[in-house]
Amino acid sequence: MATDLDIARAATLLPIAEVAARIGIPDEALEPYGRHKAKLGLDFVDSQRSRPDGALVLVTGISPTAAGEGKTTTTIGLGDALNSLGTKTMIALREPSLGPCFGVKGGATGGGHAQVVPMEEINLHFTGDFHAITSANNLLAAMVDNHLYWGNELGLDARRIAWRRAVDMNDRALRSINAALGGVPNGFPREDGFDITVASEVMAVFCLARDLDDLRARLGRIIVGQTRDGRNVTAHDLKADGAMAALLRDAFAPNLVQTLAGFPALVHGGPFANIAHGCNSVMATRLAMKLADVVVTEAGFGADLGAEKFLDIKCRAAGIAPSACVVVATVRALKMHGGVAKSALGAEDVAAVRRGIANLARHVQNMQKFGLPVVVALNHFTSDTEAEIAVVREAMAKLGTEAILCTHWADGAAGAADLARAVQGLIAGGTAAFEPLYNDHMSLAGKIETVAREIYHASAVAIPPPVAARLRRFEEQGFGHVPVCIAKTQYSFSADPSLMGAPEGHVLPLREVRLSAGAGFVVAIAGDIMTMPGLPRRPAAEGIGLDARGRIEGLF
Amino acid sequence: MATDLDIARAATLLPIAEVAARIGIPDEALEPYGRHKAKLGLDFVDSQRSRPDGALVLVTGISPTAAGEGKTTTTIGLGDALNSLGTKTMIALREPSLGPCFGVKGGATGGGHAQVVPMEEINLHFTGDFHAITSANNLLAAMVDNHLYWGNELGLDARRIAWRRAVDMNDRALRSINAALGGVPNGFPREDGFDITVASEVMAVFCLARDLDDLRARLGRIIVGQTRDGRNVTAHDLKADGAMAALLRDAFAPNLVQTLAGFPALVHGGPFANIAHGCNSVMATRLAMKLADVVVTEAGFGADLGAEKFLDIKCRAAGIAPSACVVVATVRALKMHGGVAKSALGAEDVAAVRRGIANLARHVQNMQKFGLPVVVALNHFTSDTEAEIAVVREAMAKLGTEAILCTHWADGAAGAADLARAVQGLIAGGTAAFEPLYNDHMSLAGKIETVAREIYHASAVAIPPPVAARLRRFEEQGFGHVPVCIAKTQYSFSADPSLMGAPEGHVLPLREVRLSAGAGFVVAIAGDIMTMPGLPRRPAAEGIGLDARGRIEGLF
Repeated sequence: MATDLDIARAATLLPIAEVAARIGIPDEALEPYGRHKAKLGLDFVDSQRSRPDGALVLVTGISPTAAGEGKTTTTIGLGDALNSLGTKTMIALREPSLGPCFGVKGGATGGGHAQVVPMEEINLHFTGDFHAITSANNLLAAMVDNHLYWGNELGLDARRIAWRRAVDMNDRALRSINAALGGVPNGFPREDGFDITVASEVMAVFCLARDLDDLRARLGRIIVGQTRDGRNVTAHDLKADGAMAALLRDAFAPNLVQTLAGFPALVHGGPFANIAHGCNSVMATRLAMKLADVVVTEAGFGADLGAEKFLDIKCRAAGIAPSACVVVATVRALKMHGGVAKSALGAEDVAAVRRGIANLARHVQNMQKFGLPVVVALNHFTSDTEAEIAVVREAMAKLGTEAILCTHWADGAAGAADLARAVQGLIAGGTAAFEPLYNDHMSLAGKIETVAREIYHASAVAIPPPVAARLRRFEEQGFGHVPVCIAKTQYSFSADPSLMGAPEGHVLPLREVRLSAGAGFVVAIAGDIMTMPGLPRRPAAEGIGLDARGRIEGLF
Repeated sequence: MATDLDIARAATLLPIAEVAARIGIPDEALEPYGRHKAKLGLDFVDSQRSRPDGALVLVTGISPTAAGEGKTTTTIGLGDALNSLGTKTMIALREPSLGPCFGVKGGATGGGHAQVVPMEEINLHFTGDFHAITSANNLLAAMVDNHLYWGNELGLDARRIAWRRAVDMNDRALRSINAALGGVPNGFPREDGFDITVASEVMAVFCLARDLDDLRARLGRIIVGQTRDGRNVTAHDLKADGAMAALLRDAFAPNLVQTLAGFPALVHGGPFANIAHGCNSVMATRLAMKLADVVVTEAGFGADLGAEKFLDIKCRAAGIAPSACVVVATVRALKMHGGVAKSALGAEDVAAVRRGIANLARHVQNMQKFGLPVVVALNHFTSDTEAEIAVVREAMAKLGTEAILCTHWADGAAGAADLARAVQGLIAGGTAAFEPLYNDHMSLAGKIETVAREIYHASAVAIPPPVAARLRRFEEQGFGHVPVCIAKTQYSFSADPSLMGAPEGHVLPLREVRLSAGAGFVVAIAGDIMTMPGLPRRPAAEGIGLDARGRIEGLF
């Protein structure tokens, strides 16, 4: 069977200027990066601001399983199908991180006949955005320790430094380190650690900023730590924000690539969907909405994590609202939510599908709570049976939505044509009445409880007294108006990854809260959240290399 | 006065395809990175291999002082002058490192009217090469710790791991760390540290490899540490070399930019000139020699460090030989070598110049020892007097060379026209008879002693018995044939940075030797060598930012 890389390589790519022309982007707006990638200049982006907005379609999914549900392929397939039907469409995706690429997960450019290309280049380095973000993160870190070294004028308490270093690599050995060892010339020893770049607040800032001024202002607001008496010290206090913005300037321009079908795709930014908001940059989404009649974009993990944050954090920050929502599911994953072991997924099990639908149904209803019309994309596997599919269709019909079988992985645009027509219908229907789940004025604890109750179906949130006090302190410091970004496992509506399906009445145990003042949200951590993955016993990196012609092999 | 950035910004840049066309590079060979930078495709590089080589001119300098001697500006000015005189010329330079940019040193793209542009982009990220090198370095590091974590099949001794992590930032807090703290999920705690990217062996490998196969093979030979019984463990043993090569593939293509005069410049790679060999990539130099009749390139620090390594390491590895050598000096620096304090450099002091010439004279004679015809470029400052300049001219005439006043910083190509004519004369004279200082078969200790005696004028090398034993062990392991890369202070011929001028009879104290099996040299460290700089009390970063139009300001 042809691998994703085989299919990507076999494709004939259009020159990027031709791709741009298909959506009306003039040649002068392009900053080419090779023949098949380009950044869209910030001046061009600015010049589009007064144009009307196209409709926004959010692609999200059920609680993910190791089997993979296919949100990215669905986003790409849907975009290609809409374009094929004559709707001027752009897709907006996250950039892949190098870490997972060398670990277990592989790349993040779709798969089968629903990919963005050039696959190898997007997965490795791309236009350097993540490297710029890593550099900005680490410049701030170096300036923090340098400030301590030269006398600590601002009075930072070395025990209260919250700013960690970043690397775009799965490297568990850097999770927890003692830094500045070795004596006087190396500074004051202290505990520190690295997060993977997608977990850096700089990534979240980069993805939420509306323009360069906003970027600089948000960078300046980043809190690196506190003084002994609890006063916040910011990147601006350290005079690091200007240089950080300079490091990010070129990266801040959205990246244009193409799908296998030659349609335009913006791929820009990529924060974690747990401790950050998990979707591509506001810059890319807003630009796409100016350029296209329909924009299809995705949010990370399941709809409880990614879509909730997309709606409550990103849409709020960007002043945008979706017209429709696609929830992606697979029969295989529904069977897993219905209790079937991975080894038995190939056999028909209608009863298990019926049980597992509870997960899908709740995600659909949750999206409806935001005022969005929903359609379900059932990403087809050859092992799916008619009877299993029928069960899903019936269940969705009862929720007032439609489950549509999609075969874009195998068939490209044609495989998502039905889905595209359904999405066209939802947009044309004009029934979307988007409202965020909570308003700015609610207390931070209230916001957390609202998400837990309405989205997770938790009966309560367990907030330890020190955590509650910290939330009140954020409010006293003037940060009560920001949204909350809840970090919990993506595998369950609850904080327990083993609770599949649609658990009810669980208690969400809040462990810690952090203020991301630059990004503009409070992170609320429930359970163990990993901000630096490790490599598996046999990392994908072992199989990656160059063939005799210098082509990259082993990426998947 | 106009800053370098003002001058660079005021310049009208040619589209990079026009710059390429000036030297006969076809449009198809270009991988554009924005409008004014391009990589030259590896297929194009291969297609040039059978063409005859142009003449190579090495620009080096006296022992540097904080005043700055101007090797990079001289390289650029000389290139522009040769092109203006009708000689088809290309320059080849190192890429700047981000670290110094934010520290005290500023960028590294020349200055005044002798710059390569776009200045801001070359100094910040450029085409991402250093980020790719950092990633490859850190992937290997992550795979080392991951190997320990999953059972250590290869039997690596955690105390004998030599491979350090890298970051392209001046960050003293990372020089010495304890990593993998925090318990079982994070691995086995051990001592570790970060070097700045330019000090990574991956950088040296990148800059010495002749082609992709050579790159992959060298990466595979990198030694990450030893087993308990002293057996070397390599990147190939860890199956990391393929993925490292994949990470480096695109970066490995040389970068084309232009000088302020619109002439082509290759800017590619940039290893440290102490623990590595300090000059741009073999790929760039060899390609430039295929494309141009004359190639002007520079080596880092003074000629005792940079030029010696260029000649004994790079020329040996690349199979190339220079036709002429330019030694750059300033009257101000000669005065400092003659004992004048920095505050008094503005006043005429012929006697001090006469004393300081000892430093210049030795560098000139050293280059002559390699069989190279030499010309001295006297980089003009307005405070230089006729009498001072005359002293330099006379002294150089006695050495059979010429000192030529250059004003390219103020006047661009016209200011280096005399120098260009002298260089044309040296090349046309055909007197170059390049020989490396020592042959492959000499013992490693013998090679170190030869450089110390012939170039540094040391009376002896103090090699502690354990260091001598280590050198013998490298020879037993089959690495006796490689050249040596001596790391010592750049400020003196000796290992004592305060010994200015031309000290004689000093003893070179060898502290440590390391085998860079991938790069293909043995590093011999004399004195304290910093592989991770720190930031100053007021880092340049504090003044860097974006202006109201989004342009970068504060770079210098």
